[in-house]
Amino acid sequence: MKETKNQIKNSIESTTNRIEHLEDRTSDIEDKIFNLENKVEQTEKMVRNHEQNLQELWDIMKRPNLRIIGIEEGLEKQTKGMNNLFNEIISENFPNLKNEMENQVQEAYRTPNTQNYNRPTPRHIIMKIPNIQNKDRILKTVREKNQITFRGKPIRISADFSIQTLKARRAWNNIFQGLKENGCQPRILYPAKLTFKFDDEIRSFHDKQKLKEFTKRKPALQNILSKIFHEEEMKNNDANQQQEALA
Amino acid sequence: MKETKNQIKNSIESTTNRIEHLEDRTSDIEDKIFNLENKVEQTEKMVRNHEQNLQELWDIMKRPNLRIIGIEEGLEKQTKGMNNLFNEIISENFPNLKNEMENQVQEAYRTPNTQNYNRPTPRHIIMKIPNIQNKDRILKTVREKNQITFRGKPIRISADFSIQTLKARRAWNNIFQGLKENGCQPRILYPAKLTFKFDDEIRSFHDKQKLKEFTKRKPALQNILSKIFHEEEMKNNDANQQQEALA
Amino acid sequence: MKETKNQIKNSIESTTNRIEHLEDRTSDIEDKIFNLENKVEQTEKMVRNHEQNLQELWDIMKRPNLRIIGIEEGLEKQTKGMNNLFNEIISENFPNLKNEMENQVQEAYRTPNTQNYNRPTPRHIIMKIPNIQNKDRILKTVREKNQITFRGKPIRISADFSIQTLKARRAWNNIFQGLKENGCQPRILYPAKLTFKFDDEIRSFHDKQKLKEFTKRKPALQNILSKIFHEEEMKNNDANQQQEALA
Repeated sequence: MKETKNQIKNSIESTTNRIEHLEDRTSDIEDKIFNLENKVEQTEKMVRNHEQNLQELWDIMKRPNLRIIGIEEGLEKQTKGMNNLFNEIISENFPNLKNEMENQVQEAYRTPNTQNYNRPTPRHIIMKIPNIQNKDRILKTVREKNQITFRGKPIRISADFSIQTLKARRAWNNIFQGLKENGCQPRILYPAKLTFKFDDEIRSFHDKQKLKEFTKRKPALQNILSKIFHEEEMKNNDANQQQEALA
Repeated sequence: MKETKNQIKNSIESTTNRIEHLEDRTSDIEDKIFNLENKVEQTEKMVRNHEQNLQELWDIMKRPNLRIIGIEEGLEKQTKGMNNLFNEIISENFPNLKNEMENQVQEAYRTPNTQNYNRPTPRHIIMKIPNIQNKDRILKTVREKNQITFRGKPIRISADFSIQTLKARRAWNNIFQGLKENGCQPRILYPAKLTFKFDDEIRSFHDKQKLKEFTKRKPALQNILSKIFHEEEMKNNDANQQQEALA
Repeated sequence: MKETKNQIKNSIESTTNRIEHLEDRTSDIEDKIFNLENKVEQTEKMVRNHEQNLQELWDIMKRPNLRIIGIEEGLEKQTKGMNNLFNEIISENFPNLKNEMENQVQEAYRTPNTQNYNRPTPRHIIMKIPNIQNKDRILKTVREKNQITFRGKPIRISADFSIQTLKARRAWNNIFQGLKENGCQPRILYPAKLTFKFDDEIRSFHDKQKLKEFTKRKPALQNILSKIFHEEEMKNNDANQQQEALA
């Protein structure tokens, strides 16, 4: 009997020791987690800040650029350089700009840097026009023409945006279409601001939330946009549910 | 009696099992924390490196820029473009530079990109002067004149620095003032180096710590700077205490 | 007897309570670690993305630059500016390019920004040639000449690459040497692609792994490269073992 009692006493004592040791380890762990959480939060904040910083840098870098889409790979060798290729585009499409715009290209290159021979479409060409007013004039003239060509084949000329800015501009697509069909003359201003005419005034919005709130107070606008807002919400919900189902 | 003994035995056994399970979980956790700490440290190192990297990129990007402060919003439409606005500034303030500096603007834009109608002050204009020597000549001439104007109203023209560089330059403000009042002809060199004349020699410092150590060995300089150093330390202490009180 | 039983019962109960509390804490910790791991992974992904993003920005920024190595500090004052220094280099080394290349420098500066007086070698000079075709012509002419000089002393002129691109280019060094010695006319294309002539065709590779796989199927190439591949692997193994020994 005495022996058993001692055994039990020892068992409990050993148990208590192990618990105490575990409690110490757990306290250490909690301290470390507290520190880690702080560090991670600080780091995250810096990373989000870098994200925005990089987008701004890209936007500034890309601001003087034109993006030329649809020029067959290698044609720049036939024209003996990008500069002549640009001059050909100008004289083929905008003969009245010829004198002012010739030789305005500072840098030009295919992007991405390396050609993927499995892709059937040619890489885009980036052309840097150091004078931003000239770049904007070309883009304006492009918008006014229905079709741009190079040696008779259709090509496209557009501004060169950062990936983030491109996303922000595309987010307006459906609303832009709706406004256009209803004569509101929508435009996307640099980098991603929507403007349109409503009640004889030019309205401009940086994000959808603000446009939604404005729409709530304007029944005429609600007629145009409520269906589009509703459809976009449905799509977002679907996407979220799919993500949750996958998680 | 037998039954109680068994109960106790079972209790202790179950307790031991739970402890063993907890010890396993805790070991797992410690392994995970070790890995996390390593990962976070690596990530932090990269993020600090990116921070510096971004500052360098901004400094290089902003190097050819002038920052024009105080030009009413919309005046660039009256002058039919930023280029003419720049030319007007040149001929109004530096008529002797007119021939060389006209049409030297490569890009120009308001910053930030979007106008906040609640702010009473006009946005700054950034003008990129591709030839850095020309940009520096304009800044030098600006420093020599007391007042720059546009159509008679005072404006300011300054270099365009990254946020980090701006902070580093501002950190010299009080010391700069003290040195100036004592005839030491201080200057801030690009990007944020303080130089001044002392004992008939040009001295230059990248950070305050080095200037403090130098000051300790020069009583004449100590007379000028010790009060400023002391005041700045008091302010820093106050700020730290406030932060600690908030934490 | 009764008392002892109660003591034991209490002991076990208290133990159980402590275990339960520990189990709760451990579950909390596991939740927090799960969240932290997710956050860290997200952050890591963004940081790796920023790493690549920054390299691309640097490559684009540095693309119009020449790097001039070996010009004594201060000589740019003797020539009254970097522009004249560049013109002197052109007329001393490439008199036939003189008419086209003069005054083509848009920006020029020493790098790093601040001079370290303990270093015996002068800082490099970065010169930005806005027209990339002109920059490439200068580099091509440099490759064709054995020796470039400034006022009779040897200097070097090279492209200006980002640190990452420089690493990627240097990684080809041994293989480049081996191919050159065997008449394969190797070249490194921008930013870091190896090309060479083999079996009367131009072959190009973005990374060593692909070149290794290609080499396995070509005995003639294996004769040239297998020894180099083997030596590089040995070096890598040594480096890894050293790192493990230090860990």
